[in-house]
Amino acid sequence: MGDIAIGIDVGGTKALALVVARDGRVLGDVQVATPHDESIGAGTATVAVLADEVNDLCARLGLHANEVPIGIGLPGLVRRDGRLAFAPNLPTASGADLGALLGQALASSMVVCENDANCAALAEHEWGAGLGIDDFVMVTLGTGIGGGIIADGELVRGRSGFAGEIGHMVVEARGVACLCGGHGCWERYASGGAVGRMARVEARAGRLPKMVQRCGGPEKVRSEDVTAAAAEGVDEAEALMKQVGWWLALGLSNLAAILDCGHFVIGGGLSVVSDLVLPAARECLVDLVEGYDARPTITVATSMFGPRSGAMGAALVAFERVS
Amino acid sequence: MGDIAIGIDVGGTKALALVVARDGRVLGDVQVATPHDESIGAGTATVAVLADEVNDLCARLGLHANEVPIGIGLPGLVRRDGRLAFAPNLPTASGADLGALLGQALASSMVVCENDANCAALAEHEWGAGLGIDDFVMVTLGTGIGGGIIADGELVRGRSGFAGEIGHMVVEARGVACLCGGHGCWERYASGGAVGRMARVEARAGRLPKMVQRCGGPEKVRSEDVTAAAAEGVDEAEALMKQVGWWLALGLSNLAAILDCGHFVIGGGLSVVSDLVLPAARECLVDLVEGYDARPTITVATSMFGPRSGAMGAALVAFERVS
Repeated sequence: MGDIAIGIDVGGTKALALVVARDGRVLGDVQVATPHDESIGAGTATVAVLADEVNDLCARLGLHANEVPIGIGLPGLVRRDGRLAFAPNLPTASGADLGALLGQALASSMVVCENDANCAALAEHEWGAGLGIDDFVMVTLGTGIGGGIIADGELVRGRSGFAGEIGHMVVEARGVACLCGGHGCWERYASGGAVGRMARVEARAGRLPKMVQRCGGPEKVRSEDVTAAAAEGVDEAEALMKQVGWWLALGLSNLAAILDCGHFVIGGGLSVVSDLVLPAARECLVDLVEGYDARPTITVATSMFGPRSGAMGAALVAFERVS
Repeated sequence: MGDIAIGIDVGGTKALALVVARDGRVLGDVQVATPHDESIGAGTATVAVLADEVNDLCARLGLHANEVPIGIGLPGLVRRDGRLAFAPNLPTASGADLGALLGQALASSMVVCENDANCAALAEHEWGAGLGIDDFVMVTLGTGIGGGIIADGELVRGRSGFAGEIGHMVVEARGVACLCGGHGCWERYASGGAVGRMARVEARAGRLPKMVQRCGGPEKVRSEDVTAAAAEGVDEAEALMKQVGWWLALGLSNLAAILDCGHFVIGGGLSVVSDLVLPAARECLVDLVEGYDARPTITVATSMFGPRSGAMGAALVAFERVS
């Protein structure tokens, strides 16, 4: 069975599972809602749902769940041994060893875990928008910002396996409070979630009258409303997306300074509307990157696999570590 | 001659050259002022001084300059091929291939260049405060902030060799202007140079009366005055050094999030007074690092070789790349 693996991307709201061939083809998929129930033990509810999901996929394709390597991509600090050490967006699984739990549920010894954005970086490096590029950063723009760093062709994992938490890089000292407990984290300004937050700040201050009217009040403006309005050409929504592009470029510039990566791959939910953000971000990089003119061109590409790159990369991790 | 190399650390004000044995012992040293004369060609004046310096050292130790591998550590963006692509603090050498020029001057084919903080990181990793540690960042606090990143036991060089420009990570969006052309760079808040700058800002606003009196006016307060006063226990100088410690911790936290390095080695001029800064920085890390409690302890150590680590690392680069 060395030519097929299952990759699961567990997000705060949904869990996507894919059956992936070694060459990157997707042979089957299923998506379920992520449960949030801690009363029966950290991760227990999540694992029950994931086990059903895997069994469902396997039944459809005539596979046995305990004969296929399985990788799980998780949002948060995933230790090198697979345990989810800290997950602000998945508190009911924080601290759990989901790999071991799912292995027990499926009677499988072939389950491994990795950070979701690290998975996405590996998938894009192997099959997608980072193919053949030795130094790049995967940036996933969802509720927050996740990251996976490829340096000299290898994933940077760090001491405990926690590297790539780029969304919690502070870009505004003493700035907006973050779920992680810090202030001024990049993801408060440049993620999908940040679009809605910043729009509501503007709306409360009496700006964005068109958006407030469309949504029925300043508190009702959500990210999706802003991106939809910007796509329709509503000027104030377009302007806000350009602001998000500036903040995105600011963090990318920091990463370029620290890592000298010449390439970024942008994924996650917000990448679906990359036309509204990336042109502004690319333009702003010119002023924000230290010594821009002394460097070769820095490219900002859209993820090849969009919302699927995390699950695809989880399958790749399974291929490489347990098959 | 494979057991001896010369390492030169070229700073904005002085150039230190060392003769170093393969085991890290320093066999000889000389220091000269860095010239600033661009009229005769980028880097020409610098190279003339470095050639004299090397010849002087070699004469003293009975060596031939063209038989000893030579490494040069440079402040700025050093390309993988050795050219100094961008150097805000060494404008008269910016763009020059100092390795080739010095090689010509000494009739030597054994001269290589590397970023100065990368050199320092390599020296601390091989012989000093980073010995045996696979994931750490060298942070040099001088006029600015330099950095060298060791990930999984290897120096992170990046696409062009420019990785580690951590001083130009923006930590205060639209903050204080930086020599690099950007705004809000970390080195404007946490370097040796930042101590004086922040003290003058405070003094102009009518604060720091004791410092203003000691120095004879708000504009006359320099970094050295603040560190001296703090060492004597002057309360307002101590408070300012604690502020610097907070800013230092902020940048370290960002690096810990991005790279998951569990160890920092602090070098450069300001590290000489590390007792005034590092205790506050260590304390602030607890609140600033994302998921601090989920991580193993993060250590902040002082450089083993102080202002010599750059030159020692330059010698190490010479050993590894040309001997």
